[in-house]
Amino acid sequence: MHFDFDQIDAIINARSIAIVGASGKPGKFGHALVAAQLAMGFEGPLYLVNPGEEEILGRRTYPSLESLPEAPDLVYLTIPAQLSLDVLRDCGRLGVRGVVIIAAGFREAGPQGAALEREALELARRGGFRILGPNCFGIYNPRNRLTLLPGYDLSRTAGDTAFLSQSGGFSLHLARMGKSLGIPFRAVVSYGNGTDLDECDLLRYFAQDPGTRTIAAYLEGTRKGREFLDALREACAQKPVLVWKVGKGEASRRAVSSHTGSLAGSAEIWHSALAQAGAISVSGIDEILDVLLVLRHLGRNWGRRILVAGGGGGLGTYGADLAEVEGLSVPPLEAVTRARLGEILVRAGAVVGNPLDLGTPMIPLPLFAAAMKEAAANPSTDLLVFDLAVNFARDLVGDRGIFEAADALARARKETGRSVAAVLYSRACDPEDMSVEDLLRRVRARLLEQGVAVFPSMARAVRALSLAGGPACQRRN
Amino acid sequence: MHFDFDQIDAIINARSIAIVGASGKPGKFGHALVAAQLAMGFEGPLYLVNPGEEEILGRRTYPSLESLPEAPDLVYLTIPAQLSLDVLRDCGRLGVRGVVIIAAGFREAGPQGAALEREALELARRGGFRILGPNCFGIYNPRNRLTLLPGYDLSRTAGDTAFLSQSGGFSLHLARMGKSLGIPFRAVVSYGNGTDLDECDLLRYFAQDPGTRTIAAYLEGTRKGREFLDALREACAQKPVLVWKVGKGEASRRAVSSHTGSLAGSAEIWHSALAQAGAISVSGIDEILDVLLVLRHLGRNWGRRILVAGGGGGLGTYGADLAEVEGLSVPPLEAVTRARLGEILVRAGAVVGNPLDLGTPMIPLPLFAAAMKEAAANPSTDLLVFDLAVNFARDLVGDRGIFEAADALARARKETGRSVAAVLYSRACDPEDMSVEDLLRRVRARLLEQGVAVFPSMARAVRALSLAGGPACQRRN
Repeated sequence: MHFDFDQIDAIINARSIAIVGASGKPGKFGHALVAAQLAMGFEGPLYLVNPGEEEILGRRTYPSLESLPEAPDLVYLTIPAQLSLDVLRDCGRLGVRGVVIIAAGFREAGPQGAALEREALELARRGGFRILGPNCFGIYNPRNRLTLLPGYDLSRTAGDTAFLSQSGGFSLHLARMGKSLGIPFRAVVSYGNGTDLDECDLLRYFAQDPGTRTIAAYLEGTRKGREFLDALREACAQKPVLVWKVGKGEASRRAVSSHTGSLAGSAEIWHSALAQAGAISVSGIDEILDVLLVLRHLGRNWGRRILVAGGGGGLGTYGADLAEVEGLSVPPLEAVTRARLGEILVRAGAVVGNPLDLGTPMIPLPLFAAAMKEAAANPSTDLLVFDLAVNFARDLVGDRGIFEAADALARARKETGRSVAAVLYSRACDPEDMSVEDLLRRVRARLLEQGVAVFPSMARAVRALSLAGGPACQRRN
Repeated sequence: MHFDFDQIDAIINARSIAIVGASGKPGKFGHALVAAQLAMGFEGPLYLVNPGEEEILGRRTYPSLESLPEAPDLVYLTIPAQLSLDVLRDCGRLGVRGVVIIAAGFREAGPQGAALEREALELARRGGFRILGPNCFGIYNPRNRLTLLPGYDLSRTAGDTAFLSQSGGFSLHLARMGKSLGIPFRAVVSYGNGTDLDECDLLRYFAQDPGTRTIAAYLEGTRKGREFLDALREACAQKPVLVWKVGKGEASRRAVSSHTGSLAGSAEIWHSALAQAGAISVSGIDEILDVLLVLRHLGRNWGRRILVAGGGGGLGTYGADLAEVEGLSVPPLEAVTRARLGEILVRAGAVVGNPLDLGTPMIPLPLFAAAMKEAAANPSTDLLVFDLAVNFARDLVGDRGIFEAADALARARKETGRSVAAVLYSRACDPEDMSVEDLLRRVRARLLEQGVAVFPSMARAVRALSLAGGPACQRRN
């Protein structure tokens, strides 16, 4: 079917929803979805439909879609696959805009399921509504407070990042982690088998949506190779598009087929097609998060010259090593910076250069602040990355000192106008070390709030910097 | 100087030590080392030497080495570089076995420091003792309870893994994390500039040491390329040797020179030399830890056929994708296993295959236990890897259910005799989510105790499995 921006927009921004198969029984999808939706506080009317239950979680239920006071924009089906068709007929009669089919048991489950899926699509065409799914977790949209199954604790802050995903689990995972890392979403759409609305529709939608600045996608395959690549090329011309495409080997292709009934296609063809379209090829939710952080805090066209700093010679050597393998540049310090830092870092063990080694995980904080400002201001530095070894540094300056160090990094950024990032890596992971982890998380939040990107390891930082930096940053091997 | 096993052995297993430069002033190396050594409880006499302090942390001090009641086996120097030579003369006169020079300011600091380092070496030759360092953190040995600077909280459990490292920070980091991950050490030796005892000596020592089963090394470079490769080849013929060699780019070579005054050498030559010698090439402490876990729980010659299991289609697809890229095999399930699992996993959404998808992050625990046992017993499976999405699964079965699931994995391993590993990956990282992290750490300890290897992500698991699996597992690209 041809692409229709307004249809998709009406679904993602639905003003009223009904959940058919809503349930009061914990463990059922129909219960988890209602609970999640109530916790998120959907802004419009939320109708619960179940002929067998009178009240669910304290709210009245309706016996059928037809008994509702209005036709909802969006209907969720949390009923078994084989019961879907009757409800879809009702949807067509009532004139709903869209239907989210949560259940599995369609195309991915074999010929019978495939027949069911074809019929569902036929009913949607005839009824004039669109289907999201089947075999999906739905939509997360902080603006109208739609949420994924079972995304009861997602952020209510709206942002400009969109994620479209064939996997429900990964939709939830990215939305959940984005909340922790200060990446607010425009919307996250789990589209499962994609029988009607698919990767092409959703990609075009977010490419055209003026509120979306960055798009990420998890793809198992597509049935419309040509159309998808056209859509991708157009999207990449508008905004950064991250694509995570799985299905590189035999087993993962088998898995793709039984997960969402997709055809994975050749890994080699995909690889070059993504590169030609101008997409950022990523692998894994962690890598998506890291690249989103780079795009958010540094933008796409940051220079690729980094200054690697930390307290310890091995740390900096390793950081520089990783950075250079990823195609980033770690140029020597300029003479002016070398002189100024030489005056600040006079202790034995400190090495003034790039990498910059404080000689110990943390130095007295006024010196640290002065050093970071000079380092960020170095004329040939586009980005200062400081590796804050939280548990070692804490032994030297205490928890409060760690926060002060974080604030010093944020000030260095603000006062120099340069980009600054931090690596917060915990070298303590026993059950007894929880206070280090707690400190690390609070410091991370403090840094992110102030525009300092945070990564959990130097390896992940430089990888993301390289990926986001575009073709200038090509990995060496 | 020629290799002498007994000399090195006497130093690593020192029965008495003296700390010259011991100090009561927090912030000084001489304080941190004394505090660490007291906390670890070194088993022999520990003499504190400082002519300016009478008592340090409640213990008497001596004004000089010569005033001690005996010549200690091992002397630590925590005094500035330029004061070292006089003490080294005393060491020679007294007949100590070894000296650990903690201070920086030698070869890595320029020509003056290099001259100092040459003189120190000359004094060691004349005095008949060996030097570890300078510019190092010393030795961790749980048998006599020597510890690194400032390794006050390292494990007291002795094991069979040795680590030699030019970086003090990485020595401490690996020792610390090994404690959390149930990897006990034979010894960890930080050798810094390696002016006397160097990578060749230490590698030969651990290769010959019958109590060492696995060796890992962090190398910035070597001044004895030929000799080192001979030592490496011999070591690799005896036991697995992991080598992390940095210095791949311009900046990291500069860093190597200013960190430990080493020559990094050509990355390409190192790469092929390590492969020819039969070493396992690794990068980063995390990768060393992961490979050590594989070697400990699966051994080196495990088959490379894995069964990827989890609750969620995306998860398994991704896991299989990663595994195949790393050169592991993810073969289809055997018919017998398919039939048995088909009887256990009847719910919609579950996909019986390899990858194996439970359909939800956790299923009722008796079913889970039965499924894991069948999966581990699958005839063409060498290793079952289960991705336990702790925070999602916890919502379904509670904390207690997570422990029961862990025990079910351990039982599957025990009852089938097959290897089982778990991925414990937290999808919650807010300061408010600390209880998930706490649960994850406790579950990890429980799994490791029972011989189930644990990895923090599927990506790290399959990478380590591939690295440890030897030449049969070659990464595809």
